Amino acid sequence: MIESIVLVGAGNLATQLGKALKKANFNIIQVYSRTTNSAQQLASLLNCEYTTDLSEIKESDLTVISVKDDALSPVVEQLSPESFVVHTAGSVSMAILAGHFKKYGVFYPLQTFSKARDVDFSVIPICLEAGSAEAMEELTLVAEKLSKMVHSINSEKRKTLHLAAVFTCNFVNHFYDIGDQLLQEQQMDFELLKPLVQETAQKVMRMKPSEAQTGPAMRFDESVMSKHIDLLNDKPDLVDLYKLVSRSIYNAKK
Amino acid sequence: MIESIVLVGAGNLATQLGKALKKANFNIIQVYSRTTNSAQQLASLLNCEYTTDLSEIKESDLTVISVKDDALSPVVEQLSPESFVVHTAGSVSMAILAGHFKKYGVFYPLQTFSKARDVDFSVIPICLEAGSAEAMEELTLVAEKLSKMVHSINSEKRKTLHLAAVFTCNFVNHFYDIGDQLLQEQQMDFELLKPLVQETAQKVMRMKPSEAQTGPAMRFDESVMSKHIDLLNDKPDLVDLYKLVSRSIYNAKK
Repeated sequence: MIESIVLVGAGNLATQLGKALKKANFNIIQVYSRTTNSAQQLASLLNCEYTTDLSEIKESDLTVISVKDDALSPVVEQLSPESFVVHTAGSVSMAILAGHFKKYGVFYPLQTFSKARDVDFSVIPICLEAGSAEAMEELTLVAEKLSKMVHSINSEKRKTLHLAAVFTCNFVNHFYDIGDQLLQEQQMDFELLKPLVQETAQKVMRMKPSEAQTGPAMRFDESVMSKHIDLLNDKPDLVDLYKLVSRSIYNAKK
Repeated sequence: MIESIVLVGAGNLATQLGKALKKANFNIIQVYSRTTNSAQQLASLLNCEYTTDLSEIKESDLTVISVKDDALSPVVEQLSPESFVVHTAGSVSMAILAGHFKKYGVFYPLQTFSKARDVDFSVIPICLEAGSAEAMEELTLVAEKLSKMVHSINSEKRKTLHLAAVFTCNFVNHFYDIGDQLLQEQQMDFELLKPLVQETAQKVMRMKPSEAQTGPAMRFDESVMSKHIDLLNDKPDLVDLYKLVSRSIYNAKK
């Protein structure tokens, strides 16, 4: 059974996962980060030790790697083969860990994490994959202490899930940002858009997104679309975006 | 004081606005639509008369035009100059009504409406504009019976607001749809993405969208982005979208 945990990485995901694990009474014994500042910050939050030296990582029941994908391989090379190691990356296959460790798997919480915003882990889907039935069992026990939504998802499906998450979260948030910028330029406040942002999200809790679609692109209301493009005339990047997304909406309808 | 209302148009907005007005005890006396089917449907919902002939529109205290922007002008030409007329279009200037009517204005509820989904009007921003102080006063009384959020917004600002709404609602919903499609192809359910969709929206109730941004484009994680583009190799339109939005996210960070 997993009790002690080391976190390799101290970014947004590591921070929120660390807080959730600690709250669920796991014993976080150490945090690693490349930079002293991040390591120190998370260690102080979790009340544990920290290191910036991969060779000083302590033995524990579970080592959780949450680093930028490019940084995963060098980390994997340096950890003890005796460790039980998981990574938390949506787009990295579990295969990157195979052959290196006795026990390994993937522990992927599907959510957007920021250091400054705590989230309710109990409703976050945790997608698990493991190199053995035993590893899966142990990871399931950990995941179920954090969330009611624990799923077994293989590497291929996880990649698609991550891609879909980029569209439905990162890209969506960028469009919130564009809305915010457009309003600011006209001395209006993002407050005005908040009910719309909420309803747009709430709508797809009940309806299929394809059925929830509204707006000028969907209706092919050329008069509105050309006015919008005129309004963006000093922002060629946004004109391109506007046209491309509008066309995509219209094509999806067919 | 406005009591009797005629609705010109029977689309999503007219349907939900009509229901809200009826609930607030206004007397909807007639619905017009180009097609008998739509006119009949909304009239039966509102328990009122309907017509498909613009010359048969009845006299009332307020005529609300909610038609596709291109259809506005012909409607305006046919209504009685004695009427108090408003339109509900985000991107159409109030000027289209000036000179035609004794009293006129714009009544723009900023929300996404579908016929099949009722919405709580009390939290919908209603953006008003009017041709006279008297008209503004009367429209304000109507709007305040529907919503706690009544704003005076001129035509220029309203156009920007509508454009921002397209980004933060229509475009956002399309990305939900893309997520849904991607998951379906891999036999996964949109349910998995729902907590992410909700958190992404909730996050910007508290944080600025620019501060809430996460993901590979923001981190410029090329390894993840190139995997995503590979995954989309049979969908050239989505590759274009992915690249364009990712670049826009990265540029916004600077």
